[in-house]
Amino acid sequence: MDRHADILITGGLVLTMDDEDRTIPDGAVAVSGDIIAAVDDAAGFEGWRVDRTVDARGGIIMPGLVNVHTHAAMTCFRGLADDLPLMTWLNDHIFPAEATLDREKVATGTALACAEMILSGTTCFCDMYLFEDAVAETARRAGMRAVVGEVLFDFPSPAYGPLRKGFEKTQALIDQWRKDPLIRIAVEPHSPYLCAPDLLKKAGDTALKNDCLLVTHLSETRNEVDQIQKTYGRTPIAHMAELGLLGPHLLACHCVVLTASDRTLLARYDVKVAHNPESNMKLASGIAPIPQLLDAGVCVGLGTDGCSSNNDLDMLLEMDTAAKLHKVANLDPTVMDARTVLRMATIEGARALGLDGITGSLAPGKQADVIIVDTEKPHLQPMFQPTSHLVYAARGSDVAFVMIAGRVVMENGAVFTIDVDRAIREVNRIARGLR
Amino acid sequence: MDRHADILITGGLVLTMDDEDRTIPDGAVAVSGDIIAAVDDAAGFEGWRVDRTVDARGGIIMPGLVNVHTHAAMTCFRGLADDLPLMTWLNDHIFPAEATLDREKVATGTALACAEMILSGTTCFCDMYLFEDAVAETARRAGMRAVVGEVLFDFPSPAYGPLRKGFEKTQALIDQWRKDPLIRIAVEPHSPYLCAPDLLKKAGDTALKNDCLLVTHLSETRNEVDQIQKTYGRTPIAHMAELGLLGPHLLACHCVVLTASDRTLLARYDVKVAHNPESNMKLASGIAPIPQLLDAGVCVGLGTDGCSSNNDLDMLLEMDTAAKLHKVANLDPTVMDARTVLRMATIEGARALGLDGITGSLAPGKQADVIIVDTEKPHLQPMFQPTSHLVYAARGSDVAFVMIAGRVVMENGAVFTIDVDRAIREVNRIARGLR
Repeated sequence: MDRHADILITGGLVLTMDDEDRTIPDGAVAVSGDIIAAVDDAAGFEGWRVDRTVDARGGIIMPGLVNVHTHAAMTCFRGLADDLPLMTWLNDHIFPAEATLDREKVATGTALACAEMILSGTTCFCDMYLFEDAVAETARRAGMRAVVGEVLFDFPSPAYGPLRKGFEKTQALIDQWRKDPLIRIAVEPHSPYLCAPDLLKKAGDTALKNDCLLVTHLSETRNEVDQIQKTYGRTPIAHMAELGLLGPHLLACHCVVLTASDRTLLARYDVKVAHNPESNMKLASGIAPIPQLLDAGVCVGLGTDGCSSNNDLDMLLEMDTAAKLHKVANLDPTVMDARTVLRMATIEGARALGLDGITGSLAPGKQADVIIVDTEKPHLQPMFQPTSHLVYAARGSDVAFVMIAGRVVMENGAVFTIDVDRAIREVNRIARGLR
Repeated sequence: MDRHADILITGGLVLTMDDEDRTIPDGAVAVSGDIIAAVDDAAGFEGWRVDRTVDARGGIIMPGLVNVHTHAAMTCFRGLADDLPLMTWLNDHIFPAEATLDREKVATGTALACAEMILSGTTCFCDMYLFEDAVAETARRAGMRAVVGEVLFDFPSPAYGPLRKGFEKTQALIDQWRKDPLIRIAVEPHSPYLCAPDLLKKAGDTALKNDCLLVTHLSETRNEVDQIQKTYGRTPIAHMAELGLLGPHLLACHCVVLTASDRTLLARYDVKVAHNPESNMKLASGIAPIPQLLDAGVCVGLGTDGCSSNNDLDMLLEMDTAAKLHKVANLDPTVMDARTVLRMATIEGARALGLDGITGSLAPGKQADVIIVDTEKPHLQPMFQPTSHLVYAARGSDVAFVMIAGRVVMENGAVFTIDVDRAIREVNRIARGLR
């Protein structure tokens, strides 16, 4: 073995999130290029040649967080409208605001989102929105790992015009980014209520043919379920099953309103679920039956959804809410324990995106997506269980260091890959135009 | 008018939280001694003699947050035990840990809690625990405003021995702190399930005689309600009514499990309610009917409860959870709007503690309890509505400046009134003893 590391992150408590759930009290992670070379006791690296040492004393060294569902550019609309009935919020505020978007504005909103995500420890996200070519380029420039897909629906898009062009754009994105180390393209029909069966089937075919993730909103609200039931005579999940679209490459976002047979279908076809508790709460959509899905063996990742329904992209806070919400919903404090929730935000999130071989845990040979959470702060002391603090007490601002694919993108609050001041300035120009 | 200020906090957006809900975009707060001298446009202070100017540009200047229910010293047990059935958690972890407490340990845990609270913008808290003499002294030294009371129950206390001594201690605390500008003493029987009717009545008498707040846990869990119903033939609220203990000076903590007539009683007697959503969620106690209590005109303040059931003391995050939880519980996104929740964490919290003439809003003549929330950060941009950001996007670490009674206690993360490193060191010594 070549006892050389470009970077050695050392002296912290290592949470690997690997299959053995290995925790190393005084541990270190050696990084070579974009790859994790070794994970061991800090003492085990004596004698190694190391180009740069990162001191993680007083911190937790862990895999970067994975946000499995967001609309990054909606940072532009953060706090534009809250506390409104869903249809008023959508029709009078969000849709008119989105009609003013263009490629440049989406790039700006995405840059701000990438800054926020990096600062709070997210190294990988899955995005659905308009002008996703801009999202892919912006995320790539920010050094973030991302799965992105242009949203497809039955009506013309401000981004690409008629649906036919939407599929062409999706194929062009797939071809353009096929060999990129950070960016993957997904096929992303919006939902069964905005997409006719033909659109959904064509999206499914495109995903299978190109070995891509298929991402869609599914069973988010009672209204949606009633509407699909009325139109197609079955639930949204059963409708997707009928269309032959359930499978391990499908990421179903939300899954709030489910029947027992919906849950069985999701488990049987190994469909992945994106759980977005804060958005579901803020929009009053309902509480997804996550403990029941986990019991059935479904892979569930955690997401924030967009900034207009959350209103932040902080995965550490999302974990806290996820853990607590299901305890009270089930009147059982033992469900959604800290370890389960932390896995949803790391390795299970990676699995939901088909990236568990690449990211989501610290193991030799995997991509070096590594963060340090600084625990030498009053609200993270004392520390009996690191997992507990990460879920119940830490917040995004406790992240002190972020590495993605071996590249240090943030240290002590400074983001090296994004002009944050410029992103803030530009997003404020967009906001002034919306007022 | 004397146009002189010891400190002028200027250039930020001022949220007064006063009765007119006045917001001043480029505003300033003038402080003279421990008092707010004036609140106005920044330009209105031209020509004033000012000893020190605090630059609040890019920030929100607002009243300090009020945490109406906590057990500060339980920071010692943060993350000691989570995700357990209530009785296992209490009997196997919390009670044995508490049995090891002494005056010094409570002082240490409280110092750490005060540091955490100050760093996250809380200027006033209401505490219930053992060795509250240590809590009063520690909070006073930290420069915090606090309402504290020794917990009373039917069995001997590690802090004072037999119950008689508990009442003596309470009276001594009341006498000792009567003229203090920051500390108030409350009479604090634990709950109807740990306090016999005689104890409760004596506590009520002591509170009335000394013009003190009466603080107790009430209707926190279904179990408690069933037990009180079985023992006394009525709900805990009706039991308190029967004992003649409902009144405007009663702060009822939790009020999760209520009947319609319980709600009517609380409203009729102007009982104040402490709402602790994160603790109620984490312990799976249930969801308090807060929108219904607000509709009935009940004054509700917001609290974090102790660190072993939260696991932090961050009131900005507590607001976020409170707003979202009731939307999803009522399947209505319009309930608990941002303004309502922000009032619960400021002026309504102050009212719940009988301190609304003193703190909770920015108005001339009130105590200068003022914080600045720095919004020049990616996750707080752009800003359409400051209220929205405070509830849905800000976190404790965004607080950049804290003044209590005219004294600057924190600036840019540095706490001036507490030896934070020492508190962390000492709390870790306590934690090692518990392992």
